[in-house]
Amino acid sequence: MQNVNITEKLSLFSDYWNPKIVGELNGQHVKLVKLKGEFVWHSHENEDEMFYVLNGTLEMEFRDKTVSVNQNEFIIVPKGVEHRPVAKEEVSIMLFEPATTLNTGDAESNELTRNELEKI
Amino acid sequence: MQNVNITEKLSLFSDYWNPKIVGELNGQHVKLVKLKGEFVWHSHENEDEMFYVLNGTLEMEFRDKTVSVNQNEFIIVPKGVEHRPVAKEEVSIMLFEPATTLNTGDAESNELTRNELEKI
Repeated sequence: MQNVNITEKLSLFSDYWNPKIVGELNGQHVKLVKLKGEFVWHSHENEDEMFYVLNGTLEMEFRDKTVSVNQNEFIIVPKGVEHRPVAKEEVSIMLFEPATTLNTGDAESNELTRNELEKI
Repeated sequence: MQNVNITEKLSLFSDYWNPKIVGELNGQHVKLVKLKGEFVWHSHENEDEMFYVLNGTLEMEFRDKTVSVNQNEFIIVPKGVEHRPVAKEEVSIMLFEPATTLNTGDAESNELTRNELEKI
């Protein structure tokens, strides 16, 4: 058991849309990811997702609205709900989600899809 | 789906050792709790627990060592591991753990035990 420093972990990478695993508990992963630009529309058939904003502002687009999520705020996206994360400027996020979660969900596998995540 | 502001939620209560539920996903609860003083030694038979420190410094005591967890750091305590959270000064924590988790774990039910948690 040891403490995990978020700021230190964030300093270890600079690539976007490529989640890193920093913790695991109860079949869930804690991940850090940096975002910039627009992701793809997708949903997750079996997994709810939590996005906790560490730095910046995340625009979470839904089909009927957009929710701005600022630093020290989080949003939970229930399974089955189509969403598209958008980051006008760089955003750092902590994700909580089941270890089974694929970042692009039900979207056809594309250049953003990450099947194997690095642990840092 | 809406954003949840941690600072705002923390302003809604001031009692210690009484976790509030602020989110739920995949059978897990996201909770906020303020700590001050010493908790009881306990472990959780079936649940790993994550403590994310929002403000202050948490001293997590284990039988063989103590880990200091500062702001923007977290620690994961695996199921079965005896631990005792200690807060010399007030500490605010975000917890991520299964909805089944009882705060005092396997310790005999006592004045710190919280069976019904408030959602805020």
